[in-house]
Amino acid sequence: MSIECPYCEKLEDYNFGDPLIQTEHWIVFLAPNQSNLATCVVALKRSQKTLSGLEEQEWEDFIQLLGRMEKAVKTAFDATLFNWGCLMNTFYLEDSLDPHLHWHFIPRYNHPVEFAGHTFEDPHFGFMRPRPPKNISEDVRNKIAEKIRELL
Amino acid sequence: MSIECPYCEKLEDYNFGDPLIQTEHWIVFLAPNQSNLATCVVALKRSQKTLSGLEEQEWEDFIQLLGRMEKAVKTAFDATLFNWGCLMNTFYLEDSLDPHLHWHFIPRYNHPVEFAGHTFEDPHFGFMRPRPPKNISEDVRNKIAEKIRELL
Repeated sequence: MSIECPYCEKLEDYNFGDPLIQTEHWIVFLAPNQSNLATCVVALKRSQKTLSGLEEQEWEDFIQLLGRMEKAVKTAFDATLFNWGCLMNTFYLEDSLDPHLHWHFIPRYNHPVEFAGHTFEDPHFGFMRPRPPKNISEDVRNKIAEKIRELL
Repeated sequence: MSIECPYCEKLEDYNFGDPLIQTEHWIVFLAPNQSNLATCVVALKRSQKTLSGLEEQEWEDFIQLLGRMEKAVKTAFDATLFNWGCLMNTFYLEDSLDPHLHWHFIPRYNHPVEFAGHTFEDPHFGFMRPRPPKNISEDVRNKIAEKIRELL
């Protein structure tokens, strides 16, 4: 249940997740790892490596999108706060893809969330500690994506 | 060798580091932890908890500052790339201060950097793994701050 997204084909190898919505300059992907419910990747729709080179209208579009995403995920799942990060680390390891500018959007929860038959928890709330992906079906991923999309 | 910064007094308990420069809306602190050389904290000069509530002119000011900081630290220490993050996690632990909006700026290096008699390394280049603070004197901290400041 993905969206139509011509630019996404260029990003196929990046494994950013399932395309959820797009704006003029950005694509939001539901991230592969949903251990923190509604974690997304927000990728630029052109080849660009660093934040320094972002155009004014790309920033404006991003800022508006950030507001919509925070509001939607707050409403959908009562997220407590949001971590935003532009890291780009792994691209600089050997044998990796060309850097492609993207943001990580990680909702954080001070309470468990029941959704689609699963309990999503945030045991490291208050800290930044990576967790392995939560084992959920494609159907559940679609339900998460639809829930966010309807509120965006 | 800090700058004059009236708003900094309000942030004293936050331990963001040594005030390095300020713009109309933001203060850059040289972070307490210099294990990654030139790590900074960029804090807003008013009380605000979330990115969603940032004013347009505050974003514009931040975007310009981000470009200046990346350029300065690239020139000063040949940083390879930059991690930017707005996390706000620790404020939500018990008995913590009120959330105060700030960004983490963490330069990353694919090579050691010799500066002021120390070798600064980035052993986890390509990954996000916290490290304990590097043991350096106040004099060395001042030299790092001056070097960045003269290039900003």
